[in-house]
Amino acid sequence: MNKPEPLNNIRVVLSHTTHPGNIGAAARAMKTMGLRHLYLVNPRHFPDSQATAMAAGADDILANAVVCSSVDEALRDAALTVGMTARLRDISIEVVQPRAAAPEILQYAATQPVALLFGTEMSGLTNEEVAKAQILVNIPANPEYTSLNLAAAVQLMAYELRVGVIDFSPAQVSQMLAPQAQIEGYFRHLEQTLQEIGFFTSQKPARLMQRLRRLYARTRLEEDEVNILRGILSVTTEYNARLRKRYQEEHPDV
Amino acid sequence: MNKPEPLNNIRVVLSHTTHPGNIGAAARAMKTMGLRHLYLVNPRHFPDSQATAMAAGADDILANAVVCSSVDEALRDAALTVGMTARLRDISIEVVQPRAAAPEILQYAATQPVALLFGTEMSGLTNEEVAKAQILVNIPANPEYTSLNLAAAVQLMAYELRVGVIDFSPAQVSQMLAPQAQIEGYFRHLEQTLQEIGFFTSQKPARLMQRLRRLYARTRLEEDEVNILRGILSVTTEYNARLRKRYQEEHPDV
Repeated sequence: MNKPEPLNNIRVVLSHTTHPGNIGAAARAMKTMGLRHLYLVNPRHFPDSQATAMAAGADDILANAVVCSSVDEALRDAALTVGMTARLRDISIEVVQPRAAAPEILQYAATQPVALLFGTEMSGLTNEEVAKAQILVNIPANPEYTSLNLAAAVQLMAYELRVGVIDFSPAQVSQMLAPQAQIEGYFRHLEQTLQEIGFFTSQKPARLMQRLRRLYARTRLEEDEVNILRGILSVTTEYNARLRKRYQEEHPDV
Repeated sequence: MNKPEPLNNIRVVLSHTTHPGNIGAAARAMKTMGLRHLYLVNPRHFPDSQATAMAAGADDILANAVVCSSVDEALRDAALTVGMTARLRDISIEVVQPRAAAPEILQYAATQPVALLFGTEMSGLTNEEVAKAQILVNIPANPEYTSLNLAAAVQLMAYELRVGVIDFSPAQVSQMLAPQAQIEGYFRHLEQTLQEIGFFTSQKPARLMQRLRRLYARTRLEEDEVNILRGILSVTTEYNARLRKRYQEEHPDV
């Protein structure tokens, strides 16, 4: 068996990039560190001559870039999503530095697709995008000037992965995580079920769902586990339906 | 005593930069990591609107940049010069990765000026520039595509220094290195002396001087040591002069 090449399983997802030059510079940054797979979610301009100019010799990365119309589309088959954030947000999901994140990212990437998700230049990741990540990574910076260029952030994270891969050895038994599309399916099922059983009456659904997302982000759900959780939801709905039916039978006048 | 701030003692020296946009991007990269001092050796265009545009909020770094007409001028008072090289050169001076170099750089920078020397975009450092460095740093990259952008290289080295400074504690006794100008003075004295005593007859002076530079680069010469070495050179010359004089007196007919 060959040594797995985790860098081949890592994609860079740039969401709603404004300046095409940054896309090209990011492609160049990726290639210098051995990353190949670029996904672009609704880029403002692409393809674009500025992107090509800034890519220098990394135009093959641009030529093979996958343009998506939503973040979900770009993450669909990713087992792990790493959100890159410049802000230390007021949330309970773990926020780590690139060096600390690299070993876990490489471990999953040895067997499964991993996405590094970068937000738009001006404002970074939206809260909705953050909620799709299992890990948040914050690059340490000068507290008086944290304005890291998008391609520079790609460069630093890619560099840590390249340095990390030198000492990398794959785990004997690797945990196979559920792809993002299944996770999203679970959250839709969960929200719908909580709605049905009347759980949301006293709680704000959006805020509660965000907390539940964080909880499951920490666990790194496997495919089997998603099936079990959805099974519980299905039974809950059925149980609830049975209860309601019996109640209606016993109280035909209500 | 306050904790020393090594980042304040570190300067970025960009030699013969072709594209002003790279100067601006380098300034931004520096500022995000807390570096402030930029030296520009014969930049092709500076000041320049492209530099300002790429600097984003780091225009104070550009405004305070020191423009020099030679590398020696930029390094004059630097106790340690770190040459950034994309090539693993066929030379015996140590070449290390940024992470390995950071602790030593910070240690010296706690008390003395340190220079990070970056060559021109197309070809990097010249051999003459390399010869002025005591440490060479090579950023690990994809062997099939090592074309790291200049500002990206600045970003990565500055990042390693910022990460390194978190765990930094200054040495109890710090070695005070001779500034670059004294080192250059010593090499001029040495070359002249070797010429005088007829050492170069069978050796190529340039190649030999390069080897001697490497030898002394490894030792990290202190000011007192430079004085001792120059004292030896002076005595050697005098001794040589005395010998010649005596020989001429004994052989008036030669």
